[in-house]
Amino acid sequence: MEPITEKGLQEAIDEMGIQDITTATIRQICALTASLENKYKENFIHLEIGNPGIMAEKTGIEAEKKALDSGVANKYPDIGGIPAIKNAGSEFVKAFLDLDIPPKCIVPTVGSMQACYTLMTILKQRIPEKDTVLFFDPGFPAQHHQAKMLGLKMRQFDIYDYRGEKMRDKLEELLSDGKVTAMIYSNPNNPSWSNLTEEELKIVGEMASKYDAIVLEDLAYMGMDFRKDFSKPFEPPFIPSVGKYTENYILLISASKIFSYAGQRIAVVCMSPEVYNRKYPNLVSFYEMPNFGESYIYGVLYTASSGVTHSAQYAMAEMMDKAAKGELPFIQHTKEYGIRAGRMKEIFNENGFHIVYEKDGAEDISDGFFFTVGYKDLSSEKLQRELLKYGVSSISLPSTGSTRDGVRVCVSMMNSDDLFNKLRASLKAFRHDHQ
Amino acid sequence: MEPITEKGLQEAIDEMGIQDITTATIRQICALTASLENKYKENFIHLEIGNPGIMAEKTGIEAEKKALDSGVANKYPDIGGIPAIKNAGSEFVKAFLDLDIPPKCIVPTVGSMQACYTLMTILKQRIPEKDTVLFFDPGFPAQHHQAKMLGLKMRQFDIYDYRGEKMRDKLEELLSDGKVTAMIYSNPNNPSWSNLTEEELKIVGEMASKYDAIVLEDLAYMGMDFRKDFSKPFEPPFIPSVGKYTENYILLISASKIFSYAGQRIAVVCMSPEVYNRKYPNLVSFYEMPNFGESYIYGVLYTASSGVTHSAQYAMAEMMDKAAKGELPFIQHTKEYGIRAGRMKEIFNENGFHIVYEKDGAEDISDGFFFTVGYKDLSSEKLQRELLKYGVSSISLPSTGSTRDGVRVCVSMMNSDDLFNKLRASLKAFRHDHQ
Repeated sequence: MEPITEKGLQEAIDEMGIQDITTATIRQICALTASLENKYKENFIHLEIGNPGIMAEKTGIEAEKKALDSGVANKYPDIGGIPAIKNAGSEFVKAFLDLDIPPKCIVPTVGSMQACYTLMTILKQRIPEKDTVLFFDPGFPAQHHQAKMLGLKMRQFDIYDYRGEKMRDKLEELLSDGKVTAMIYSNPNNPSWSNLTEEELKIVGEMASKYDAIVLEDLAYMGMDFRKDFSKPFEPPFIPSVGKYTENYILLISASKIFSYAGQRIAVVCMSPEVYNRKYPNLVSFYEMPNFGESYIYGVLYTASSGVTHSAQYAMAEMMDKAAKGELPFIQHTKEYGIRAGRMKEIFNENGFHIVYEKDGAEDISDGFFFTVGYKDLSSEKLQRELLKYGVSSISLPSTGSTRDGVRVCVSMMNSDDLFNKLRASLKAFRHDHQ
Repeated sequence: MEPITEKGLQEAIDEMGIQDITTATIRQICALTASLENKYKENFIHLEIGNPGIMAEKTGIEAEKKALDSGVANKYPDIGGIPAIKNAGSEFVKAFLDLDIPPKCIVPTVGSMQACYTLMTILKQRIPEKDTVLFFDPGFPAQHHQAKMLGLKMRQFDIYDYRGEKMRDKLEELLSDGKVTAMIYSNPNNPSWSNLTEEELKIVGEMASKYDAIVLEDLAYMGMDFRKDFSKPFEPPFIPSVGKYTENYILLISASKIFSYAGQRIAVVCMSPEVYNRKYPNLVSFYEMPNFGESYIYGVLYTASSGVTHSAQYAMAEMMDKAAKGELPFIQHTKEYGIRAGRMKEIFNENGFHIVYEKDGAEDISDGFFFTVGYKDLSSEKLQRELLKYGVSSISLPSTGSTRDGVRVCVSMMNSDDLFNKLRASLKAFRHDHQ
């Protein structure tokens, strides 16, 4: 395709009512890209959206159909989760993270989106002075929006500026006034695909205990650090988690990416038993329930949606159960993303791009679902706009809380050689015009 | 069974940590009843819980299985709803309520519980001075809890004290300071099963327009006023709705009871086009979106759960579509509840009980999913406790915001002659001991 002109692009942006392309939501970028596709009669390369690019795990679908046939549709699901999902979640966490979380502390939610929103709700209530959430940025933009919705104060730092032992001083600075109720990060990280190292997780855990800041560890892409083989249940190496270093943690495990099950909206919240059982005078008086875990389930989650789709709970239960038994090689299945990322990085590199977030400690980051690219000294906005002109849609790093220049690239939709050839041609043309 | 002693009952209540049985949640009452069943080795009669007592509509289950087979599980559902549910919702509302709501304004939610919680969220934001929600009590206790969670101020009145033209003066008194952002009621009413008359709906609609208070009309039991035949799509009589009398309305239509689909957690929010399209400076600046409807979908619902289980959307779409085509006689199916209610009322009456909320205008209330009973001058607490001693579990009227003495009875679990005989025997024994 001929590159779109500056005028043509700006017109489309104006038509969508987008004020600032770098802070627009992913949804707005999708809509903008669709309008450009329509206007220029050209299919774009979609690197902006994070839909799973592989088939849903069949195990889940079969379990769900079976549950529907058995008659679960007319019965309210238990808000705390059906026994099967609670038990399977406990096994799954032991098998792959080597953490001991009893079934009681495993609770399904309508995706990790609901998990994070409802957990922030109660984390804001538990101790009134703790009114702040700390984001390890860059991160998932929706979680910043959730905090804003709930009126939580926010702090943030760019992980990449404080790696290794430097993280301790930074966290000390951010946590020492005791205002932070929760810290949030995803591991692997969306968008940078960096992983906190064991050294860093230990620091985070120690600081979580020291200042009573509960860690929300978002494992949306659990196991997708393909540099190590985490695929064998109950055998080392285990997937690193802050749960090894503090009792002050809650895991978010979503079926969306690890089982390619985003459509059915299901995740599990896994609370450490210490978090579950803690009593707060504020919660006891507000919810008239004895502890954090029950206030969360019967107070917050009941209010939010009265539980999670019954059949989807059976799907998630069965997938976690089989995975823990070694009968569902889910990590093997998602390795496809790593392969796509490797091919894409090559194409970006050969056309003069660089990886923005490129190292974990001394190691290169893993190939996985996302990575980040920059081009020379182009600003985030400029790069995102210029790529759009060449038919490549991405989201800008500032929208993720990053302080660096570049864009996020999602590999999931790159499911054919044609697309790779198209990407190569687009980036070649881009490079030609941006020497 | 021998009646449980006062001491035995109080011990069980204390063991559950219940402070006040009249304000305990339904869930706590269920747990108390289960513990009594366990302790006394006797099955109780469960009139407390509102699980559908009939099978889920097969149409929904088949549609859902088909959707799963077609591969929807790995794709994020559109937050605004799949086209099929938006179109079917629009048809369904036209067919049974004779209201014109375009597909754009029909949005699925994770049950009406999520609908109400998320709508309250944005109704609190739209105009900062409007910080109060008005409940037509008695009502669904969870909705009061939702308002409390969100920090909304609350007002309420007992419908039964202000029926007919009297309602106008009461609403004038409650609304005239302009603080009320939303009014909430269910029609038929949970727990009283009264229905607002056309005269009353007209008054509510006029007041909603006059004071810009948006009506949340909860149609959880839509069509279950069996005194009239609402079963023919696109033919009068239509189910009464405030939508005939104001543009300031939002309907909540849940699949849980009307299609016996509570397990799958799906409902549709149906906004009047005027509500959907309204612009509020506060929303535009907070969500950076142009109007109420889009702020609700892409701002609030995205944050709450990123949409609704994909397969369940297909189920709801198909059920509404078939119902509107006259191919799914859902009202006929739920008539079973009316039959059960009729039989139960007879048993209560013959044992000296009376219906607490018994009239709509000049008419007796319909037989349906719930009704309310009192016994002589027993207080709500006393009656609920005494019935428990005779193996009958119910919830007290004060927990629903009612100012009257009595308990709520749900007919849904009464699915065998044995249960009716057991109820008769229990109430006979009760009466014998309470002359």
